[in-house]
Amino acid sequence: MARLVESSYGKCGVRLTKVVRDGERHTLVELDVQVILVGAFDKVYTEGDNSTCIPTDTMKNTVYALAREKDFDSPEAFAGLLADHFLEFGQVSCVEILAEEEPWTRISTDGGPHPHAFTRGGPGVRTCRLLAERGAPRRTWAGVNGLEVLKTTRSAFAGFHKDRLTTLPETHDRIFATSVEATWEYARAPRSFAAAFDSARSCMLECFAGHDSASVQHTIWAMGEALLARVPEISEVSIRMPNRHRLLVNLQPFGMDNPNEIFVATREPYGLISGTITRE
Amino acid sequence: MARLVESSYGKCGVRLTKVVRDGERHTLVELDVQVILVGAFDKVYTEGDNSTCIPTDTMKNTVYALAREKDFDSPEAFAGLLADHFLEFGQVSCVEILAEEEPWTRISTDGGPHPHAFTRGGPGVRTCRLLAERGAPRRTWAGVNGLEVLKTTRSAFAGFHKDRLTTLPETHDRIFATSVEATWEYARAPRSFAAAFDSARSCMLECFAGHDSASVQHTIWAMGEALLARVPEISEVSIRMPNRHRLLVNLQPFGMDNPNEIFVATREPYGLISGTITRE
Amino acid sequence: MARLVESSYGKCGVRLTKVVRDGERHTLVELDVQVILVGAFDKVYTEGDNSTCIPTDTMKNTVYALAREKDFDSPEAFAGLLADHFLEFGQVSCVEILAEEEPWTRISTDGGPHPHAFTRGGPGVRTCRLLAERGAPRRTWAGVNGLEVLKTTRSAFAGFHKDRLTTLPETHDRIFATSVEATWEYARAPRSFAAAFDSARSCMLECFAGHDSASVQHTIWAMGEALLARVPEISEVSIRMPNRHRLLVNLQPFGMDNPNEIFVATREPYGLISGTITRE
Amino acid sequence: MARLVESSYGKCGVRLTKVVRDGERHTLVELDVQVILVGAFDKVYTEGDNSTCIPTDTMKNTVYALAREKDFDSPEAFAGLLADHFLEFGQVSCVEILAEEEPWTRISTDGGPHPHAFTRGGPGVRTCRLLAERGAPRRTWAGVNGLEVLKTTRSAFAGFHKDRLTTLPETHDRIFATSVEATWEYARAPRSFAAAFDSARSCMLECFAGHDSASVQHTIWAMGEALLARVPEISEVSIRMPNRHRLLVNLQPFGMDNPNEIFVATREPYGLISGTITRE
Repeated sequence: MARLVESSYGKCGVRLTKVVRDGERHTLVELDVQVILVGAFDKVYTEGDNSTCIPTDTMKNTVYALAREKDFDSPEAFAGLLADHFLEFGQVSCVEILAEEEPWTRISTDGGPHPHAFTRGGPGVRTCRLLAERGAPRRTWAGVNGLEVLKTTRSAFAGFHKDRLTTLPETHDRIFATSVEATWEYARAPRSFAAAFDSARSCMLECFAGHDSASVQHTIWAMGEALLARVPEISEVSIRMPNRHRLLVNLQPFGMDNPNEIFVATREPYGLISGTITRE
Repeated sequence: MARLVESSYGKCGVRLTKVVRDGERHTLVELDVQVILVGAFDKVYTEGDNSTCIPTDTMKNTVYALAREKDFDSPEAFAGLLADHFLEFGQVSCVEILAEEEPWTRISTDGGPHPHAFTRGGPGVRTCRLLAERGAPRRTWAGVNGLEVLKTTRSAFAGFHKDRLTTLPETHDRIFATSVEATWEYARAPRSFAAAFDSARSCMLECFAGHDSASVQHTIWAMGEALLARVPEISEVSIRMPNRHRLLVNLQPFGMDNPNEIFVATREPYGLISGTITRE
Repeated sequence: MARLVESSYGKCGVRLTKVVRDGERHTLVELDVQVILVGAFDKVYTEGDNSTCIPTDTMKNTVYALAREKDFDSPEAFAGLLADHFLEFGQVSCVEILAEEEPWTRISTDGGPHPHAFTRGGPGVRTCRLLAERGAPRRTWAGVNGLEVLKTTRSAFAGFHKDRLTTLPETHDRIFATSVEATWEYARAPRSFAAAFDSARSCMLECFAGHDSASVQHTIWAMGEALLARVPEISEVSIRMPNRHRLLVNLQPFGMDNPNEIFVATREPYGLISGTITRE
Repeated sequence: MARLVESSYGKCGVRLTKVVRDGERHTLVELDVQVILVGAFDKVYTEGDNSTCIPTDTMKNTVYALAREKDFDSPEAFAGLLADHFLEFGQVSCVEILAEEEPWTRISTDGGPHPHAFTRGGPGVRTCRLLAERGAPRRTWAGVNGLEVLKTTRSAFAGFHKDRLTTLPETHDRIFATSVEATWEYARAPRSFAAAFDSARSCMLECFAGHDSASVQHTIWAMGEALLARVPEISEVSIRMPNRHRLLVNLQPFGMDNPNEIFVATREPYGLISGTITRE
């Protein structure tokens, strides 16, 4: 009477710290890794037959063992090594790897960047996603989460649709604050994934700063266009932006004006705008 | 050079409290509502032309105004009213409504359930999702989030695939703890959405308690099967369960045994198991 | 030039699960324990001399080992055992133990409460705090965190101080919602800590429900008074209540009235009211 | 029978955004402010008499109105203005102001720091606390929260107290990661609160990086000493550091060594170390 139509399983929150020592100078990589498998696992569900089931505990071990065995210079490369490994199991038809990188940066000292001490940097967190389906070309995405930005002018929202339930006033000068979540697919590997990420993030920051925004939607499009123009290896980008509203405070009850100076930041409700932009 | 291939926007975190008074007895409904629209909004993105754009602020107003104007007896019914409203706009091709219900229950007193005082109940949070695509039949899902359960026995994990990176010992008696996230689609509306939800949640709790589990996967299947058997209006259910591990503590260094008595709860890493079960 | 004037250290987040088996019937206790020590540890700080330092890792081990070695029937009793243990170290002058109990309740089945399957219950989380200073009488507190309550009437806020910056209208009928955090000290041990806790929580829930509230402050006082009257072993109670505002939505722009029916819940800003009530 | 022995109340989460425009160049300040009052409010609690009660809603209004009326160049200065205001009420005996500053930094562009676009910076969040008791000298604290740091070497933990429950191995080379929470009191106002904060934070970062740590305690002392030496206006500092453990992964089951290269980051349990350092 019942049928299993979809299933997947894996390990989340595998937190890997790798320190590579080059004399006094240490390189630190911290990744939060997720491994998800799809495959011939139906009997695990329907019959309690675990013979094909690779324990999620083994996935965790694999992350640490591969990190020790292999050299890699990017989350994307490490994700590829993990995918290679899990596709060796015949029962696996698809491997998905997600990784978030802790944004550590070297502490500045009089003698320059410190060789082995770090502080949390940013802005935003670098992400990567790899999908390896048996028999299909591998797909690689990168992105940034929690890229918080705010501009105090050059943002408008006017000329919108009005109905009997509309009370929002039009504005030609508002604060625009958001936390960008962007994910882009690489049609082919860039020379350096780190450089491509830095380039993509800088491009989005500059575009956000410089764009004359008619709406959050309008800025998403501008950032997507700019990204495709800047990084040739990117074929498509999805951007999601919550509107972290800063509302003008009404000071009239206290006999004061408020010439776009005093705002209240609110967390909810919030607008959420999404768009996916591809090359023609 | 660039093209917008997908877009949607809406308002999240619209927190509605509605009090209905029947003499001394008050009914309290609290929903956290999300409205998402898809439609002819491309020029909002690509040209900064807002003429078709319904502000997310108006969506928020609409939630409160409709809640005042209309009677409804379930989140599903309210979601339907919202979808009706937004499909009246010609530029909208698809409306998605999500709602989570705060689980308030009446405070018990000597005189029985209190007429107007409540405390947060549970277990879990009732959810609903409605998808209204112009010209297509409406689809309605309900579900539960954060349904935390734990059993201290009748859970095993053995006979699994082993490789050189496997260290997990087999076990025929372990603690099984999870936080169930389940979403089911109604092929047709049940007589009462509230009763169907209660029935579905009870069914899952009883199944979790009574099932001889060979794995998290095995229990997902059992719960899905039971749900389809119990609530005839449900056509399909997706269940996701993180494994909230309780690991046996090694007390040997202190000269003690540990006959399945002392465990440590860990938050990460954690297994995450998913399955979708449908009627044949 | 510098002097250490205060110090303490310990282990937080020690998550203990203990299962006690009585035939088919299992008892489950889950505690999140914190151990804090004060004592002759100055040289650990100032000279890097660890000879008196009990590692926090040993504190963690101690929680698990004592949980295996000893029987206890309450968080308060277990905290006492831990304090006894750590005061055996000569360098320790004061031990503070904090414990939060996960509120598991048995799943209901046709055959009654299930012998070994549980779901997260509530309302609120039971807490305990023990302070054992060498040479001083031991002090024991219990409490509840996150006890979420809401009443839809019998709450007013009027007659308050007004100045040029006051805009809040007086109200004689509002929603009162809060999340109670209460901590009470036991002057002497009650016959049963569990029964005393249940009695205290019920008392606060009933008082919240029944009280004609003139303000959050007023209800704190009423709850404190009621608690001291109900549980004779309690000498003093501190209560803290955030005001989880439900604001009446202005529907006039849509041509609607709002007879105390439609509200918006806001998270911030929020009032925070505290009071400590003792016996005369 | 009951007596109110302590009480306070106030408003939390008052989120203020202030934009100051100097031609094209905008200055952005975002504070999360908390106002707490102590005073002659007993009858508010015990009799429901609100005549002395300043509504927390008025406190919120006051934050926005003063922000518009007054110029201020630091959270400390703004806290002082708020304290002045609330001490004008005769019923208030003590005002406590807390403020956290959102760490916005200008987006870098080819043309230098952007005049009106910002991204979230860091590291850590600047805090301030002011206590104004009627008739007593005002006290001012500043600090930093969430200052996340990690060093991959020059950290040891050895020579500690051992007992039958100790299993931790001694180590002379471990990773040391923490999130510093520091609060310092100013005996007198520095010329610039911003410069004093920057100096204090830099000093702590450099000290963390350069110190040969024998324990978390040892580093707290070193950082406290360094801070007092660097910023002459600071009279005392309290530092709290959770130990964000990075544990060496045991790779022996896979036939691999692990020469301090592969670690797992854990969130709980965690050591928590505190110390307060004052001038002699």
